[in-house]
Amino acid sequence: MRLLKVSALAAVVGFQAMNSAQADEGMWLLNAPPLQTLKERYGFQPTSAWLEHVQKSAVRFNSGGSGSFVSADGLIITNHHVGADDLQKLSDEKHNYLRDGFHVKSRAEEIRCVDLELNVLMSIEDVTARVNAAVKPGASAADSFAARRAIKSEIEKESLDKTGLRSDVVTLYQGAQYQLYRYKKYTDVRLVFAPEQQAAFFGGDPDNFEYPRYDLDICLFRAYENGQPAKMEHFLKWSEAGAADGELVFVTGHPGSTSRLFTYAELADARDRRVPKVLDWLKAQEVLLISYGGRSTENARRARDLLFSYQNSRKAYDGELAGLLDPKVFQKKQAEEERLKKLAAERPELADVRAAWDEIAAAQKIIAQTSQRYNFLERFADRSSSLLAIARELYRSATEKAKPSGQRLREYRDSNRASFELALFSDEPIYNDLEQVRLTAYLTQLATEFGADDPVVLAALDGKSPRERATELVTGTKVKDVTVRKALYAADSVALEKAVGADPMLALARAVDGAARMARKTIEEQSEAKEQAQSKIARVRYALDGTSVYPDATFTLRFAFGTVKGYAEDGAQVPAFTTIEGMYTRSAAHAGREPFDLPARWLAQEGKVKLSTPMNFVSTADIIGGNSGSPTLNRAGEFVGIIFDGNIQSLVADFAYTDTQSRALSVDARAIIETLRNVYDAGELANELLGKK
Amino acid sequence: MRLLKVSALAAVVGFQAMNSAQADEGMWLLNAPPLQTLKERYGFQPTSAWLEHVQKSAVRFNSGGSGSFVSADGLIITNHHVGADDLQKLSDEKHNYLRDGFHVKSRAEEIRCVDLELNVLMSIEDVTARVNAAVKPGASAADSFAARRAIKSEIEKESLDKTGLRSDVVTLYQGAQYQLYRYKKYTDVRLVFAPEQQAAFFGGDPDNFEYPRYDLDICLFRAYENGQPAKMEHFLKWSEAGAADGELVFVTGHPGSTSRLFTYAELADARDRRVPKVLDWLKAQEVLLISYGGRSTENARRARDLLFSYQNSRKAYDGELAGLLDPKVFQKKQAEEERLKKLAAERPELADVRAAWDEIAAAQKIIAQTSQRYNFLERFADRSSSLLAIARELYRSATEKAKPSGQRLREYRDSNRASFELALFSDEPIYNDLEQVRLTAYLTQLATEFGADDPVVLAALDGKSPRERATELVTGTKVKDVTVRKALYAADSVALEKAVGADPMLALARAVDGAARMARKTIEEQSEAKEQAQSKIARVRYALDGTSVYPDATFTLRFAFGTVKGYAEDGAQVPAFTTIEGMYTRSAAHAGREPFDLPARWLAQEGKVKLSTPMNFVSTADIIGGNSGSPTLNRAGEFVGIIFDGNIQSLVADFAYTDTQSRALSVDARAIIETLRNVYDAGELANELLGKK
Repeated sequence: MRLLKVSALAAVVGFQAMNSAQADEGMWLLNAPPLQTLKERYGFQPTSAWLEHVQKSAVRFNSGGSGSFVSADGLIITNHHVGADDLQKLSDEKHNYLRDGFHVKSRAEEIRCVDLELNVLMSIEDVTARVNAAVKPGASAADSFAARRAIKSEIEKESLDKTGLRSDVVTLYQGAQYQLYRYKKYTDVRLVFAPEQQAAFFGGDPDNFEYPRYDLDICLFRAYENGQPAKMEHFLKWSEAGAADGELVFVTGHPGSTSRLFTYAELADARDRRVPKVLDWLKAQEVLLISYGGRSTENARRARDLLFSYQNSRKAYDGELAGLLDPKVFQKKQAEEERLKKLAAERPELADVRAAWDEIAAAQKIIAQTSQRYNFLERFADRSSSLLAIARELYRSATEKAKPSGQRLREYRDSNRASFELALFSDEPIYNDLEQVRLTAYLTQLATEFGADDPVVLAALDGKSPRERATELVTGTKVKDVTVRKALYAADSVALEKAVGADPMLALARAVDGAARMARKTIEEQSEAKEQAQSKIARVRYALDGTSVYPDATFTLRFAFGTVKGYAEDGAQVPAFTTIEGMYTRSAAHAGREPFDLPARWLAQEGKVKLSTPMNFVSTADIIGGNSGSPTLNRAGEFVGIIFDGNIQSLVADFAYTDTQSRALSVDARAIIETLRNVYDAGELANELLGKK
Repeated sequence: MRLLKVSALAAVVGFQAMNSAQADEGMWLLNAPPLQTLKERYGFQPTSAWLEHVQKSAVRFNSGGSGSFVSADGLIITNHHVGADDLQKLSDEKHNYLRDGFHVKSRAEEIRCVDLELNVLMSIEDVTARVNAAVKPGASAADSFAARRAIKSEIEKESLDKTGLRSDVVTLYQGAQYQLYRYKKYTDVRLVFAPEQQAAFFGGDPDNFEYPRYDLDICLFRAYENGQPAKMEHFLKWSEAGAADGELVFVTGHPGSTSRLFTYAELADARDRRVPKVLDWLKAQEVLLISYGGRSTENARRARDLLFSYQNSRKAYDGELAGLLDPKVFQKKQAEEERLKKLAAERPELADVRAAWDEIAAAQKIIAQTSQRYNFLERFADRSSSLLAIARELYRSATEKAKPSGQRLREYRDSNRASFELALFSDEPIYNDLEQVRLTAYLTQLATEFGADDPVVLAALDGKSPRERATELVTGTKVKDVTVRKALYAADSVALEKAVGADPMLALARAVDGAARMARKTIEEQSEAKEQAQSKIARVRYALDGTSVYPDATFTLRFAFGTVKGYAEDGAQVPAFTTIEGMYTRSAAHAGREPFDLPARWLAQEGKVKLSTPMNFVSTADIIGGNSGSPTLNRAGEFVGIIFDGNIQSLVADFAYTDTQSRALSVDARAIIETLRNVYDAGELANELLGKK
């Protein structure tokens, strides 16, 4: 399952680069589609109306994932594992929607998600000249970073004030382009339908990233405006016929991050340090949650979504690491680097590029030294305790709000305020016991990572053992209460400093803040230095490969294409399609044992459901984490399936695309209609999807 | 569960020190029991006949654990989790004895274990003077290490030749004593009875190391001599009455390793590096095996024992780390160290001791730098692939056999040959798919630990990805075949070098051998340097505390004592005993869900079994990993229970003993008889245990 959220953990630096594409490679911008390739390879020429239509039907899940509008009444389809975060937050001790699914017959019963924000891309504006003009020639990386942050913040605020739309300045092609993306936001989003997790994630961890597969990995939401279902101008028409073997398909969605233009030094660092370190952390989290969940059914419910996402990321990173340890990947990278260096050495106008590789290696070295401190103090901290994440946001808000927007840590900029507050004031359930267990583990890891005598560790533990400290923090803090959060958020820094004295979690946030900011500053500045060097290398690449390029993924809307096509593995041919019947067969082969057990409803309806219905299929489209829930379209722009995973061979896609065995996995549109009707008794939803009354 | 095998992983250096005991502390030598303490605290004076009887009734499981003789016909009782290794090796696709248990009505059907060796301590001889005489005064750590290794080897060989008994020179009190231990060996050991793993390990990983508990963690074997059940002079009489609350009890068994006399520097290194590193490795193994086991029931069976032992160790180390991160542990250590340093500074005759702490810190620093290389190349390698372990032993045998016994790596010494060959020619099942998965993980970890460009990694991977290389190794090697092993073992080094060319696994063993030996040499020499310094510190301790001391655990027979006694936790009192009824109640509270499910037999017999029978109980006896399966005895030396675990509060016992909450867990002798009779229909075994016909 290729969910963005945790997969992006290790991508300390979101990297963008100009890529010269081969075969069906590419995560293309919708305003710069590969028209020539499409025409030559497939005889297909998308019109601008076609492109606008698929763009405005695409939905970004801010929680990390993709989706699309599929009815005139604001119905949205995404993956079950993208909706899992919302299903978990809506569940309680009596209702386990994540495990058991959700279905209501009337719209009045659709339930509102706790803190979900959806974005639809409305317009793109080039602001490259304005951003670059803000940076003085010859500025240091630190100054350049500060200047760019300030101007981006200014542009965003201006745009928000003018249009009311969420406005993000997006860096593409390593800073060769800065584009202002404007999004329409939906924050009243309601849950409409979810299957049981058994059906959505049939085969569980063992089958994850494998193929053939049999997963009904879908979840339906509805966007509301002014308390009514949103009326859509753009939504995808559903294809009753589905896709055929060998057919051209498209994927529109939000790939999170790729690093295909890493230099050799960066790639070696990812292989030898970055990915292994994240794997250590993920495996520790996984063991912790399995152990916690094993204590009772209720514990298992509380940990379910988290555990799933850690297991998913672990399997993804294990696959990525396996790819990185293939010597061929490095041989290729070396050859490519030599090709570029050769040209740089030959052409006098590229003389200033020659040092770029060493500059990147030097910056990467500093990043490598700081990275664990940054990870533990900034990122893992927030991911290890909801209460700590909240306390930190409250503590920092007071400091950051006192600064001009352009000088703040980026998430505190004015134009992001509404999204920031939506998350901060979320009513999501927080369980003290789970917080305590996770915080104990976090403090333990902090101590062992830096040594128990490290000043930041001493400050964090405050003379106690991790377990004692975690207990004190969780039972002593008041930030679980949303009213308290609102009051603290409204407070100035003097009032907040006073509150810190009475709240241990706020005190912890303060205790690590200096060290955390210092690590973050180093990472951000060195990333800027790398970007500057990378944009020089991009000139060499441009000189060699011209304009047939796409930027690395940045969780912005992209457009991929490919062919529905099986592949050869271990000497056998894996067909492109599976059927519903295959799911029953596979379950029977495992004697119905978890995770190959079928929901009761599926067992009861085996005689009614049409077993030959196509269930999942694969295509060569170029996807990555964040593409989860992306619609798969045919030439007519109709919905033929929904992306939910990549196979194990695709896991190296962060660094390189191949179409030999690497495949994108979709749930077939036909399986969705068939099971809504004949398994879930949800004919009204099937009708809505098909545009029938 | 306190199993020695994997717990000992991190104990890179087996540490011995003189401990001054408090309360019920102590893992005492049977030839130096704490007579005065026992008399003063408990009014108990064991006679030498009593001591000899319990000594000769005690059994050491060479696979890691303890047990005892409990009938005149050679019946042995140990824990299910100690016998697990044998149950796993005797199982196949059709028989899952580890999961389902084992019981035969007639002795003729008892089945012989694949490679189990049991040891019974017969005599002890002081050889301190002879060992010390071999070391030249002022010798370097390297020379001293070599000299000691040679003389120990010589003494052992001499003793073996003379007595025919297994002979081990054991280091006690930091080299203040060297003792020759002679063991009677049993290698024809047959499986008699095992309950279902559900009953033995009821509550699974969540309940592991917890209390109250309800585990029938037992397994019965029988020693055979000349094809007949061994006739025992010494075996424990079974107590029908069991132990009572507040009663004095004894534990005889083989605690694996403690580090209670670590200096501050060593303790800090354990906390900040050693334990966290082992935990990273264990968690990665656990995730790997859960993932592999999830693919099918047969996979789960193949991985079962390994998974259990990794989970068990992980929980033990997590607890140990939690203890190490308690600042009080370090405050105490510091105070103790200051007390010793003060005396050393005051007394002129202790002048040569003053540098000892710095010497240890310096040696520890070198060990810390080398330790991961040593772990990965020596220890984790063998634990990651049975085939690699075999190939290495074959490869090294040729080299080692060419040297005089005293100069060989210690496991290749002449006096150890029989035990070594028993393991090397073991018929234990080896599964290629599991080997491949584990070897892939090992090679991946090797690459990420040292960097893919490290020479030893390049040599190990031979230009391939870990997965490709693992496939080639497992499918290409011939050492799975015991006949091939025997032929290679008989070969000289020239013939073996030739075989290496044709067998990739042997080639891998050779490729890493130089680096592995180098790392091992460093660790062994620095450990010797630490021992020399520690034995100086021992003189200070002796000057302060006199003779009331016991040596740190070394997997030699020890004797602990304590009181059957509950404890307070989170404001409530945890009673000393649980009952069989409690097990049914706990299962029902979890709706019979795994790992709280009861075997079918238990459910069927609920009406028949006497529910008020005591099931498990706790005492203050001082135990550690390796004590698993130790008998718990009353004053009369009768069997009242069997040690199977320590509670979570006892997990810091490697470094410090406390009796406030720390408890040793036993299965009650009465539960064993009751369930043999009324759950397992094994009245004949109950009768044999009770000495009835």
